[in-house]
Amino acid sequence: MDVTTIAGLLLGVAGILVGQALEGGHIGSILQGTAAIIVLGGTFGAVMVSFPKKDFVRGLKMAKLAFRDDQVDMSAVTAEIVQLATVARRDGVLALEGKLPEVSDLFLRQGLSYVVDGVDAGVARSSLEAAMEAEHQENVAAAKVWEAAGGYSPTIGIIGAVLGLIHVMENLNDPSKLGGGIAVAFVATVYGVATANLVYLPLASKLKRKLAIAMERKVVITEGVLAIQEGLNPRVLEEKLRAFTGEHAPATNEAQRRAA
Amino acid sequence: MDVTTIAGLLLGVAGILVGQALEGGHIGSILQGTAAIIVLGGTFGAVMVSFPKKDFVRGLKMAKLAFRDDQVDMSAVTAEIVQLATVARRDGVLALEGKLPEVSDLFLRQGLSYVVDGVDAGVARSSLEAAMEAEHQENVAAAKVWEAAGGYSPTIGIIGAVLGLIHVMENLNDPSKLGGGIAVAFVATVYGVATANLVYLPLASKLKRKLAIAMERKVVITEGVLAIQEGLNPRVLEEKLRAFTGEHAPATNEAQRRAA
Amino acid sequence: MDVTTIAGLLLGVAGILVGQALEGGHIGSILQGTAAIIVLGGTFGAVMVSFPKKDFVRGLKMAKLAFRDDQVDMSAVTAEIVQLATVARRDGVLALEGKLPEVSDLFLRQGLSYVVDGVDAGVARSSLEAAMEAEHQENVAAAKVWEAAGGYSPTIGIIGAVLGLIHVMENLNDPSKLGGGIAVAFVATVYGVATANLVYLPLASKLKRKLAIAMERKVVITEGVLAIQEGLNPRVLEEKLRAFTGEHAPATNEAQRRAA
Amino acid sequence: MDVTTIAGLLLGVAGILVGQALEGGHIGSILQGTAAIIVLGGTFGAVMVSFPKKDFVRGLKMAKLAFRDDQVDMSAVTAEIVQLATVARRDGVLALEGKLPEVSDLFLRQGLSYVVDGVDAGVARSSLEAAMEAEHQENVAAAKVWEAAGGYSPTIGIIGAVLGLIHVMENLNDPSKLGGGIAVAFVATVYGVATANLVYLPLASKLKRKLAIAMERKVVITEGVLAIQEGLNPRVLEEKLRAFTGEHAPATNEAQRRAA
Amino acid sequence: MDVTTIAGLLLGVAGILVGQALEGGHIGSILQGTAAIIVLGGTFGAVMVSFPKKDFVRGLKMAKLAFRDDQVDMSAVTAEIVQLATVARRDGVLALEGKLPEVSDLFLRQGLSYVVDGVDAGVARSSLEAAMEAEHQENVAAAKVWEAAGGYSPTIGIIGAVLGLIHVMENLNDPSKLGGGIAVAFVATVYGVATANLVYLPLASKLKRKLAIAMERKVVITEGVLAIQEGLNPRVLEEKLRAFTGEHAPATNEAQRRAA
Repeated sequence: MDVTTIAGLLLGVAGILVGQALEGGHIGSILQGTAAIIVLGGTFGAVMVSFPKKDFVRGLKMAKLAFRDDQVDMSAVTAEIVQLATVARRDGVLALEGKLPEVSDLFLRQGLSYVVDGVDAGVARSSLEAAMEAEHQENVAAAKVWEAAGGYSPTIGIIGAVLGLIHVMENLNDPSKLGGGIAVAFVATVYGVATANLVYLPLASKLKRKLAIAMERKVVITEGVLAIQEGLNPRVLEEKLRAFTGEHAPATNEAQRRAA
Repeated sequence: MDVTTIAGLLLGVAGILVGQALEGGHIGSILQGTAAIIVLGGTFGAVMVSFPKKDFVRGLKMAKLAFRDDQVDMSAVTAEIVQLATVARRDGVLALEGKLPEVSDLFLRQGLSYVVDGVDAGVARSSLEAAMEAEHQENVAAAKVWEAAGGYSPTIGIIGAVLGLIHVMENLNDPSKLGGGIAVAFVATVYGVATANLVYLPLASKLKRKLAIAMERKVVITEGVLAIQEGLNPRVLEEKLRAFTGEHAPATNEAQRRAA
Repeated sequence: MDVTTIAGLLLGVAGILVGQALEGGHIGSILQGTAAIIVLGGTFGAVMVSFPKKDFVRGLKMAKLAFRDDQVDMSAVTAEIVQLATVARRDGVLALEGKLPEVSDLFLRQGLSYVVDGVDAGVARSSLEAAMEAEHQENVAAAKVWEAAGGYSPTIGIIGAVLGLIHVMENLNDPSKLGGGIAVAFVATVYGVATANLVYLPLASKLKRKLAIAMERKVVITEGVLAIQEGLNPRVLEEKLRAFTGEHAPATNEAQRRAA
Repeated sequence: MDVTTIAGLLLGVAGILVGQALEGGHIGSILQGTAAIIVLGGTFGAVMVSFPKKDFVRGLKMAKLAFRDDQVDMSAVTAEIVQLATVARRDGVLALEGKLPEVSDLFLRQGLSYVVDGVDAGVARSSLEAAMEAEHQENVAAAKVWEAAGGYSPTIGIIGAVLGLIHVMENLNDPSKLGGGIAVAFVATVYGVATANLVYLPLASKLKRKLAIAMERKVVITEGVLAIQEGLNPRVLEEKLRAFTGEHAPATNEAQRRAA
Repeated sequence: MDVTTIAGLLLGVAGILVGQALEGGHIGSILQGTAAIIVLGGTFGAVMVSFPKKDFVRGLKMAKLAFRDDQVDMSAVTAEIVQLATVARRDGVLALEGKLPEVSDLFLRQGLSYVVDGVDAGVARSSLEAAMEAEHQENVAAAKVWEAAGGYSPTIGIIGAVLGLIHVMENLNDPSKLGGGIAVAFVATVYGVATANLVYLPLASKLKRKLAIAMERKVVITEGVLAIQEGLNPRVLEEKLRAFTGEHAPATNEAQRRAA
């Protein structure tokens, strides 16, 4: 479980509901089916028009990623690559074939299979980079589904509010209904702004950051695989990969702590 | 038919109308000719000034693309190119001439004609890339017609609303007309915001994504054609093109599923 | 005359005035000298501070470009360059000297004079590209005058409205003047938003697009001149230039139509 | 004096005050010490937090640049460089040493001293470019002080207005004070929006443009110095530098006029 | 202590409170627990969802950096590197080993250890650049925590205000409570806009600028270390590093003063 996603959603919703209760408001006054129909219908309608079916479905499914605890253990990846590089240097790259089933990361396994198959280094690099980039593009396009929802939702909320106000204005002769009518109209605004700022936009932000981290990991793997292919000294390789992951030698870590 | 475009438009409009009906509002109160004249006239007037005639007309026509089901079958394209590469490698590039009429994709056919005509590889690459880029630029410029409409529409709606309010304010002495007048004024806001967020902006978003996918397809074709020209091994070519399309070997697909 | 600029301005203004008239509003209520003084004075004051005199004056003058029908006939340019290339290839580059007076495009003539003068190819390319780029930068800076006006105008309109409302609030004790006062205040908002969205921003958009098209044309000319200098085969040159202009061989045009 | 800066400020402020006076408003009603304290205090507080002291102080001082008439006479610079190139070519680069004291531009003098000292061409280029880039970055960071002020000011104005409205609402029982209270509250909005749109943002825009022009000048000087070092023919150099400044041969100037 | 951060916060808050007091408002009317719960809970809930735990925690801790006086003394760094270069040139790079413990900057020490260990120049450069870039990316991602808070806070404030207004509208029949209720509702807006514009956004701005300056410093160190490795003349090195830091020879400094 991704702790910040769960805790953040709870904190955001709780903050608003507790505040509302303390001010003496009833939860009931902000629970309104028609506002929900307008805001959710309008928002997801707009989002569906905005994306091809494949992106839309993928985007919805990708929400799970924001709730999963995908701590990317960069040092474990680095260690695994360095170990494989040691094997390759000692016993030749063909010795990696026997290690392939033990490699759990599928992108790393794919890269290593190029090394074992003796694929040309240039082709291997361009294939790994193109695959990495193509997948990243697809993922980012899908993550934008939530960004788009966060963009449409507040304006749809305003449409709901204005429709409600139009209804109120037409019945202005009965002032006793005025306040209640306006209250109902405002709920649509709350729904639109709250779903956007407490759910959709934060979700999009987390997805994009997680995708960027996953991308960095693939960059490290690509560099590692290509270094194995060209027979780089495992110790030099370790130094190089650590630089990529920002977890350099102790000295630099300390500098990093100072800066943080 | 592009399912998400149709379904999204229906969902968005239905959500708002159903919500409006459930709140007890009449459809009649949001149907108003003068508001439509102000919002549509102002918006499309602004859009026409914003674009040269060629872009404007092309942009309007391009709306169709958002409704068409243009599933780009990347694996079919890849398979066709690999098959052509096999022919070229076995029988020489001139053997491709007989295959040209069977090639349905016109950009691919153009590329292959360069190969058959023995056009220099550098010229072929720069010509294919320039053609691809020039067409993409033209298309993106046309798609921006809808983006611009989505930008102008809400502000024109506000002009309509303020004009209506001015009219109301001038007749403030007759309070019985106040509510109705304000209601009429607000309809312009609804029209401006709703057309922008339910139609124009989503349409622009879908068009741009579809153009990007069409562009990716041409990149794959360009890489394929140039690889055929330089006589790349068809199996290596298949691997390379798959990387570009993100539908790598099974292993990576699985990784992709995990990430999605 | 640029049809879309004229028609768009008429459509936008007519849409709003007709709508206003149909709602029963008087044109008189939206004609107000003081609002115009505030909005135009404030906007152009802000724009003048924002730009050096040279950019400001050039930007104002450049508005004409939005009204002129500058259809760039790319095929005519391409044809002229190909014809010149044929002459150069047949009779040598010095034969171009006699053709120079017939060349109407001044950028093309400048480029050809480099060829005739035997200027080094690298210097010719960097000079043409630097000249093209410098002029484009100057033009874009000038076009931004209108973009800036479109940015300041609505906020100046809000200043005008708030100033009007302050005046109204100070005389709140006389309710009979309330409505009229507010109406007057709102006119400044209409002026600010309408000039920005019906005139300034659309104008800036059209200018920038026309400048981009003029830039593409110079890119084609530069490529053509340099190809003539290096003696490229005129037929290959034609193919290359067509790719740049997106008006490739019939096959690709058809594909383009499908996409459009 | 930079005419447009002075005239623009006068025009903007005059437009608003004259408009206000014509509507019958008193200057007095928009002169309010407390609103000024809130808006200026809040804005410059936010700006001070936003920037390191060095940038902040430099940014404030840089405002002078917007009022100074720094017409960059590109043809004078070009002429001077070409003349120096002629000396260097005729008498050798060491002959430039005697000319150094006459060179008024300090960046040019620095560049020439590299030539005289026989600094390696690669080091000279990278040093001049790094110095130019570092100074430009510092200047742009300082100019952003005004951009930031323009961003914070309207929102601080809204804080002032809402605080005023809170005060009004708490005294709602005395309607006679209502209008005056709201009027006072609105003045903060006027201050926030007006300072941002008439002063801060236009100032930032002018500073950035002037810095860009100063940067272009240094690019020309750098190219000139390096060309002198490699002994380029002064006439070719003149042609090259003119291309950079966009004041090409007459022919192109004419084309430029047509486009403008 | 970073003077501008402290002074800016004080100035901003004081400006608003003094203004409020002078207008006759009570501090008490803008101190409201429920509004604080809604705005802070909602904002930090949204921020937590938006970032992985690592970024979130690092971002919160990084706030300290905005309060610390980290004057980067570029000339001291330059002087130290030049001195080390002199040692290396006189006594060989191995002589640097004895100097390592005296080097206080940890990034510089890391770089020098590469030189002493005889790491290949290409590997050293790519490792230093990758480490520098990776750390910078991490830091910028963490600084965005404050930028995100500044983005969510005003909209959460609006949610609080609208919730308050709903509550007011439902009790419209008791006009005596109207004003007070609205006042309470508006406080949420003040909290949302004020925290964003006086604290979060300025903090994010300062952090990003300080990170950029720290990055520049590492660029200078990297260039210095690599120059030491290739044995560049210390005097030429000094010139080169000064160019990077923008504190060129006196002449240019003077030019800089003129521009500032």
